[in-house]
Amino acid sequence: MAVLCQSPLNLKLITSSSSSSRNRNANPSFRLNLSAHSRSELPPVFTSVKSFAPATVANLGPGFDFLGCAVDGIGDFVTLRLDPNVHPGEVSISDISGAGKKLRRNPRWNCAGIAAISVMKMLNIRSVGLTLSLHKGLPLGSGLGSSAASAAAAAVAVNELFGRPLTLTDLVLAGLDSESKVSGYHADNVAPAIMGGFVLIRSYHPLELIQLNFPREKDLFFVLANPEFEAPTKKMREALPQGITMSHHIWNCSQAGALVASVLLGDVSGFGKALSSDKIVEPRRTPLIPGMEGVKKAAMEAGAFGCTISGAGPTAVAVTDNEETGREIGQRMVEAFLEHGKLKALAMVKKLDRIGARLVSSQPI
Amino acid sequence: MAVLCQSPLNLKLITSSSSSSRNRNANPSFRLNLSAHSRSELPPVFTSVKSFAPATVANLGPGFDFLGCAVDGIGDFVTLRLDPNVHPGEVSISDISGAGKKLRRNPRWNCAGIAAISVMKMLNIRSVGLTLSLHKGLPLGSGLGSSAASAAAAAVAVNELFGRPLTLTDLVLAGLDSESKVSGYHADNVAPAIMGGFVLIRSYHPLELIQLNFPREKDLFFVLANPEFEAPTKKMREALPQGITMSHHIWNCSQAGALVASVLLGDVSGFGKALSSDKIVEPRRTPLIPGMEGVKKAAMEAGAFGCTISGAGPTAVAVTDNEETGREIGQRMVEAFLEHGKLKALAMVKKLDRIGARLVSSQPI
Repeated sequence: MAVLCQSPLNLKLITSSSSSSRNRNANPSFRLNLSAHSRSELPPVFTSVKSFAPATVANLGPGFDFLGCAVDGIGDFVTLRLDPNVHPGEVSISDISGAGKKLRRNPRWNCAGIAAISVMKMLNIRSVGLTLSLHKGLPLGSGLGSSAASAAAAAVAVNELFGRPLTLTDLVLAGLDSESKVSGYHADNVAPAIMGGFVLIRSYHPLELIQLNFPREKDLFFVLANPEFEAPTKKMREALPQGITMSHHIWNCSQAGALVASVLLGDVSGFGKALSSDKIVEPRRTPLIPGMEGVKKAAMEAGAFGCTISGAGPTAVAVTDNEETGREIGQRMVEAFLEHGKLKALAMVKKLDRIGARLVSSQPI
Repeated sequence: MAVLCQSPLNLKLITSSSSSSRNRNANPSFRLNLSAHSRSELPPVFTSVKSFAPATVANLGPGFDFLGCAVDGIGDFVTLRLDPNVHPGEVSISDISGAGKKLRRNPRWNCAGIAAISVMKMLNIRSVGLTLSLHKGLPLGSGLGSSAASAAAAAVAVNELFGRPLTLTDLVLAGLDSESKVSGYHADNVAPAIMGGFVLIRSYHPLELIQLNFPREKDLFFVLANPEFEAPTKKMREALPQGITMSHHIWNCSQAGALVASVLLGDVSGFGKALSSDKIVEPRRTPLIPGMEGVKKAAMEAGAFGCTISGAGPTAVAVTDNEETGREIGQRMVEAFLEHGKLKALAMVKKLDRIGARLVSSQPI
């Protein structure tokens, strides 16, 4: 499914019954792109909502900067409510719990706040104020799309509160407003955090996204080994090469093609091989993460189909088609982080999240 | 389907009934990889065979050097026969007709001859000599995989004459022996010429190929505009940049991913967009083909989904999902070659060839 930002005007407004439906992955072309076509203010349909957005693995080796996927069971929660004490048209952040205590509560400097404000602007909300509470299940600077998860959960929460008028692409654009202030204008975390599954960023102007459906009948497990080490995204970006040789370019391009093919064909072994094949970014970033080289080796020796750095690190991600093997791989990766990098680490085995950011609960008006 | 060169040994020998079957796209894992595992000489099963191999479009924009596809209805023919006048274990070229009159008849310096010798070596043929006749349907240096078609037809002819013992990957390796002496060690023409459809070259050491099946229910037409202008592959290679910026690399990689996705999803419009999107090679080669910029513009204005240089040129390739539109696009491309490049050109509208090189006729012993 290709989702275009500049979708043709579709005048079919969401009815209240479809608004309250929980099937938020319905065809986005049946929703009105308010950001482009309308400035009329919609009333809220809930007094409060709680949303969830999953962790994401961006880059995926040769998919650097244009491919990412969502993983299930870990992520951030946003609770959003109508608040007469907040100035109409504005959002306030009441509290931040979990792994994000360092984060600022000024909504203009907070990932969730920026995305919420962006959606409110798209919807031209002027009559009510909102209060947002953020629970961070994802550690900061981990390479698991922490900022994207907060932005995705907040964008979805605002959209749900007002009856879900926006397209998924609108929500990704709101998420991008947030990401651009944190780590640059990159959608490879926030697009899968919102849409679920694998998402290929085809272009930014206009924003064009291709959802790559991994076959439902196939098993795919991500082993995520997260060490106690913060790798700031900006520092990891500075490690990137300025120029690339033609032979490396061709190699990585062919592996990117193989990566996409293996996702669509459900070829977990081929996916792992492509994941492991990056000759451009991974070799530059690996030395910046203590023990990473040994961790990758340990994962492969334990039976992983492939292993690379998740996002900008320091989390290492390996893949397998068997959950039990995944736990063994995770154990070996944790041991390797300690042995080769003197870092404590935690390992998780997670499935692909095929849903993306979603409503968890709501209080009707 | 991923086809590995280093396939596990499969001892199921081809029976004579399966040898004479015409279904040459049967699962290659059921064939014996003689090159790796055996040196026993098989007897011929035909006194003569005639084979055909189709034209191919390599590069496909951002698929530079790792992606190609076969187009139906044009290609090269090889007729091969047992010849007691030829020294056992050798091949002789008796005649070359069609568009290849410039070609040398010394088999060690002829695309078809080199591939035939390579297959004979793989099969360890020592008891019979062969005579080969080549009919070239493809012009030389056209960007339509002329040398690859000759090599593919010859490799398949020898394999058929001896009961088809080799895998498709073996045949591609034989074709690569030929291509490496003509234009470099590149399989993006010869692999689709042998296997049909779209083929992604995942790696060379070992040779690993991914066949990308374009959905059968979807229509895809290639408009090929071939001007009277010879663009030598080597000269076009010299035009390639030495270094690539990170932003161009990321762009082309994402477009390569989109190209692969659009093939597997049968998205002709998306395929055309990706085909047109190359920022690295096409901009350097376009100025070397008189009129190419205007030809691309004319193709797009006539309704093509995308247009680029076929292989190393000078043929321009555009894509559409409608044959009649394809003819209009072709007419406009021919006019544009004349107007902007002062070149006469011929246009053809061709479907995807899903079969690849094949046996056309045979004379049993």
